[in-house]
Amino acid sequence: MIRFNNDYSEICHERILKRFAEISDMQVCGYSEDEYCKKAADTIRKLIGREDAAVHFLVGGTQTNMTVISAALRPHQCALCADTGHINVHETGAVEMTGHKVMGIPHKNGKISGDDVRRVHAEHWADGSHEHIAQPKLVYISDSTELGTIYKRDELIDLYKACKECGMYLFLDGARLGYALASAENDLDIKTIAENTDVFYIGGTKCGAMFGEAVVILNDALKEDFRYMIKQKGGMLAKGWLLGVQFEELLKDGLYFRLAEHADRLALKIQKAVLEAGYELYAEGPTNQQFVIFPDSLIAKLSEKYVFEYQKRIDDSHSAVRICTSWATKEENVDMLINDIKNLKA
Amino acid sequence: MIRFNNDYSEICHERILKRFAEISDMQVCGYSEDEYCKKAADTIRKLIGREDAAVHFLVGGTQTNMTVISAALRPHQCALCADTGHINVHETGAVEMTGHKVMGIPHKNGKISGDDVRRVHAEHWADGSHEHIAQPKLVYISDSTELGTIYKRDELIDLYKACKECGMYLFLDGARLGYALASAENDLDIKTIAENTDVFYIGGTKCGAMFGEAVVILNDALKEDFRYMIKQKGGMLAKGWLLGVQFEELLKDGLYFRLAEHADRLALKIQKAVLEAGYELYAEGPTNQQFVIFPDSLIAKLSEKYVFEYQKRIDDSHSAVRICTSWATKEENVDMLINDIKNLKA
Amino acid sequence: MIRFNNDYSEICHERILKRFAEISDMQVCGYSEDEYCKKAADTIRKLIGREDAAVHFLVGGTQTNMTVISAALRPHQCALCADTGHINVHETGAVEMTGHKVMGIPHKNGKISGDDVRRVHAEHWADGSHEHIAQPKLVYISDSTELGTIYKRDELIDLYKACKECGMYLFLDGARLGYALASAENDLDIKTIAENTDVFYIGGTKCGAMFGEAVVILNDALKEDFRYMIKQKGGMLAKGWLLGVQFEELLKDGLYFRLAEHADRLALKIQKAVLEAGYELYAEGPTNQQFVIFPDSLIAKLSEKYVFEYQKRIDDSHSAVRICTSWATKEENVDMLINDIKNLKA
Amino acid sequence: MIRFNNDYSEICHERILKRFAEISDMQVCGYSEDEYCKKAADTIRKLIGREDAAVHFLVGGTQTNMTVISAALRPHQCALCADTGHINVHETGAVEMTGHKVMGIPHKNGKISGDDVRRVHAEHWADGSHEHIAQPKLVYISDSTELGTIYKRDELIDLYKACKECGMYLFLDGARLGYALASAENDLDIKTIAENTDVFYIGGTKCGAMFGEAVVILNDALKEDFRYMIKQKGGMLAKGWLLGVQFEELLKDGLYFRLAEHADRLALKIQKAVLEAGYELYAEGPTNQQFVIFPDSLIAKLSEKYVFEYQKRIDDSHSAVRICTSWATKEENVDMLINDIKNLKA
Repeated sequence: MIRFNNDYSEICHERILKRFAEISDMQVCGYSEDEYCKKAADTIRKLIGREDAAVHFLVGGTQTNMTVISAALRPHQCALCADTGHINVHETGAVEMTGHKVMGIPHKNGKISGDDVRRVHAEHWADGSHEHIAQPKLVYISDSTELGTIYKRDELIDLYKACKECGMYLFLDGARLGYALASAENDLDIKTIAENTDVFYIGGTKCGAMFGEAVVILNDALKEDFRYMIKQKGGMLAKGWLLGVQFEELLKDGLYFRLAEHADRLALKIQKAVLEAGYELYAEGPTNQQFVIFPDSLIAKLSEKYVFEYQKRIDDSHSAVRICTSWATKEENVDMLINDIKNLKA
Repeated sequence: MIRFNNDYSEICHERILKRFAEISDMQVCGYSEDEYCKKAADTIRKLIGREDAAVHFLVGGTQTNMTVISAALRPHQCALCADTGHINVHETGAVEMTGHKVMGIPHKNGKISGDDVRRVHAEHWADGSHEHIAQPKLVYISDSTELGTIYKRDELIDLYKACKECGMYLFLDGARLGYALASAENDLDIKTIAENTDVFYIGGTKCGAMFGEAVVILNDALKEDFRYMIKQKGGMLAKGWLLGVQFEELLKDGLYFRLAEHADRLALKIQKAVLEAGYELYAEGPTNQQFVIFPDSLIAKLSEKYVFEYQKRIDDSHSAVRICTSWATKEENVDMLINDIKNLKA
Repeated sequence: MIRFNNDYSEICHERILKRFAEISDMQVCGYSEDEYCKKAADTIRKLIGREDAAVHFLVGGTQTNMTVISAALRPHQCALCADTGHINVHETGAVEMTGHKVMGIPHKNGKISGDDVRRVHAEHWADGSHEHIAQPKLVYISDSTELGTIYKRDELIDLYKACKECGMYLFLDGARLGYALASAENDLDIKTIAENTDVFYIGGTKCGAMFGEAVVILNDALKEDFRYMIKQKGGMLAKGWLLGVQFEELLKDGLYFRLAEHADRLALKIQKAVLEAGYELYAEGPTNQQFVIFPDSLIAKLSEKYVFEYQKRIDDSHSAVRICTSWATKEENVDMLINDIKNLKA
Repeated sequence: MIRFNNDYSEICHERILKRFAEISDMQVCGYSEDEYCKKAADTIRKLIGREDAAVHFLVGGTQTNMTVISAALRPHQCALCADTGHINVHETGAVEMTGHKVMGIPHKNGKISGDDVRRVHAEHWADGSHEHIAQPKLVYISDSTELGTIYKRDELIDLYKACKECGMYLFLDGARLGYALASAENDLDIKTIAENTDVFYIGGTKCGAMFGEAVVILNDALKEDFRYMIKQKGGMLAKGWLLGVQFEELLKDGLYFRLAEHADRLALKIQKAVLEAGYELYAEGPTNQQFVIFPDSLIAKLSEKYVFEYQKRIDDSHSAVRICTSWATKEENVDMLINDIKNLKA
């Protein structure tokens, strides 16, 4: 079976295993207080143009989201996000487990806007009994989003502006940041992200690393005691240098973005073929996740060779599936899939 | 100013203050382990026809909701409710504070149905990655609802049936149970409620008591160690007998329901007048909460004499307000309001 | 049976019931946003000599403790207290329920000192892996303490000084503050408490009120959004003015302190008799709680007429019990008890 | 510098990196639902002689402890452990973060006994106001302990017996289980552990793996929905098969235990040398962690070549340090250390 169901089906890029082997007989200081993590953090600070950024390394996305959000909020405050947001639907209530409501609002293409934030904020404070309502304090977005779409430069800038107007934090979940930034349609760069968020992370797990997410904290108010938060939430890796080594390797010469570009290009190739074959998209995005609507009969046939991620039933005979490429996807497999989409009769 | 903004603007029915005065020089055992609470619990067990019910007394609604829900759920489980549900919008994230997601789904007249439960349950378990999603385990409803509507007998029976089919608990928030049961349109009785919920409560605060909610636990699985839960959540009143005395006084001869009937009758009188004056309802319900749409200019004029609870803007010149009667509302005030609604030009 | 087991066995002082009756037909604004609460808060601000203090009213002690502590701490921080502290032993883990460790350290007469705080703080930060340890941030003390002892002026001043040196908050649980301040041995006054704590509360439940604790927040850092905290923790009473009325009545002419003085005087009378009869104290304190060691046989005999609170077994034939007086204790009952202690053979 | 400060200073055993390289171009199903995890779980079930055991793989120890404990307890229940227990002192309040008190009781050599459990249980239920106290429901122990000591067969059997008598769960933290079982003094075997605990884990991170802990659930009551718990607590590794591969490799031919034996043997060699040189032990244990008391001057000299973990000040001129060997420790380094201990003058 050829897997197109997600972007974390392979261990990691070969350069990372090679680095691990090279340093496997060294003794290193634990808990990310080592030189590898320091170097990776410096590399990230240079990349984003912010020497004052605090950089921390965690293992996975849910862990990172709940750690960042719980560190940022007081007990009565909540996180605002698109109703499609990962924290709202696919983290088993991890944020709520830390005591905070997740307030999902209707998305547009997986995104929310500055005006959404302004409206929610105005409604909260206009209500005479606002203390009876969880207080929106942090806005959570993902780039690329859970629907494979991306934030445009103007959208992010206005969103951050709205957050500052409203006294709220902006947190960008970058589990798939590489795929967003490498997209042909993207007009954002990582420096602009660093200037227009309070905290974001660079996702490793889904983009070439064995595991790991690099949290970048820009707002001083969010920096204090963050290592306690990581430890308390179970995210402090004993052999923390494994994280530093990976990010250093991925970022030092742009490998991270080249891997993402590869995935995006192949995904768009599939998108084009889907449209040409006369099928519709469930969501239209320029990154490595493609959401397509296929006849169930076609899905059944394709599923003999390929694994997709089922999304939802569209009507009696159609369903939406996610087709996902990754840094490791082989072009020959994509071409075979395209061929099958074209030639298999639904 | 005459208050129609809520049903908790007066201390309590005179018989309660009288009872307090009668026993004010007695020494009583604390924490609801006294004879007054035992007697009130017995009265409730008789009233509902369930000798096996566990009865506990708490001070207020938010406290009761978070205590019951947190006692019923394991960490990964969530509470399902109408998106208008009190726990979803007006409790400052109290349920989330105890670690659980509140999953709001679209309401119909403030209610959800058995088929809503069946659909959510089916969707959860159909999803291959269901463990990535908070597990729906408890259904929360209110009767009367936050929109003043009520559950019909058939609706409740099917809702409970659905919960049992799906392995879920049904919890009925009865903060305004009196007003529901006393309504002219009501076809439910409290015994049917006791047979078709796992746990519910009889609200005192909004229906004649100084404060207090009587939790009735029917399902054995929810009974164990409930007093620990009350204490941990800060709901164990030192002078717990004050709660027992109040419920005994309200329930022993039907005073509770007579008070509610009074409020419902006056509210319907207002509803009729509103419709006759050519205004629309924002929600149509047969209980003491009436949600009406008035021109802003009329609201401004009425607000010189009356207090309402503002709900939301409808259009540029109209808003919805809640007009609420209570056990203590004076008919002369209602008549004056009706007169003003009829005669004041918007 | 005559109850000496606690100080909350009677409803409330008669003046409070009288006030309730006087205003029972008035309509009042809910949730403590009324004029009674404003007036009581002003009275408290004058009493403590701090016009900048924020004053809030809650129903009970456990609720107050968890609300204040959870409002003050970030997720990784913990509350430090004597191992006898109420939050450590008698609140069913309510503080932990809000996510925070309670760090109990050995008490001296129910108290901890400034040097205890300095030592814990130094040890925390000396540890190279301090982020693996919950960070002490708030010191919780009670006055009078759980053993009936009181803080002396110098002790409190040094404790607060230590907290400021260490960047920690000082929170004084005043559930029995009246009994402490009214004690013959006391050299503290309420203004000094307000100058040497960040937040404290004046306990009503155990000292004349039907229920209620008045939280006084001195430190600006703890004031923001506190009403949200009260609501989220289930402590916002719908008919909040009941709290304002009670505190106004108790404090406006010193009734609160006269009631406490009465209880303390009677308790010391019992203490004296116990010592004269040749029995030992389990803890020696000058307030309304007396902890005495009696032969089990004497306890058995006394228990035919009186209710005490059992504390713990001392040896094969002796146990410690708490004998508690209150604002409502009748001197004739105390004299009868004293007589029985003297004359009943163990 | 030669590190003796902990047992997680090296990446992992070479066989693991080799296995990763072998399968690095394969596509594998995520979230531990793959064949590698299934195989490793089977291997563990065979090893412990319990076909009914549920086996799950997590990344690290704090994460595992909070996930298991929070899954096992209802809100009012607490975990009982030695006051030296890792969850009590070195996890930044992670268990409390999930809402539960950790009740530390005095340890003996890092251990607690069946009679400790019986006494705590009896005291809890003897107290008339037990619902005011967190209910002890789970006993947490570590083997080897935080002081390097081990549970003997009889001790564990009686502890489990006590837990069953008292209706409590027994959870064994096996972060260093290998070092315990490989110890020359050990008389326990893993099958006996599986028969005398409700849940335990086999630690990989500190014993040859890159990372990973294998949770083994024996008690059916703890099995349901455990994958939800892992996900919610942020412990579900996207590339979960990395965990399965590691445990399979370590356990399939006893490598895990040989690695541990190596470390224990070297640690005992150091212990012997320390005693022969006339120094005292801070704690006496037969495993890879040795706690010794050295003159500060000796520590200073040794610290020019070696890294230890500082424990605590003993007196004005002595301190306790932890000297830790691991599966990767080189005997030549141990011999050099021994030589320096013997020859360097304090």
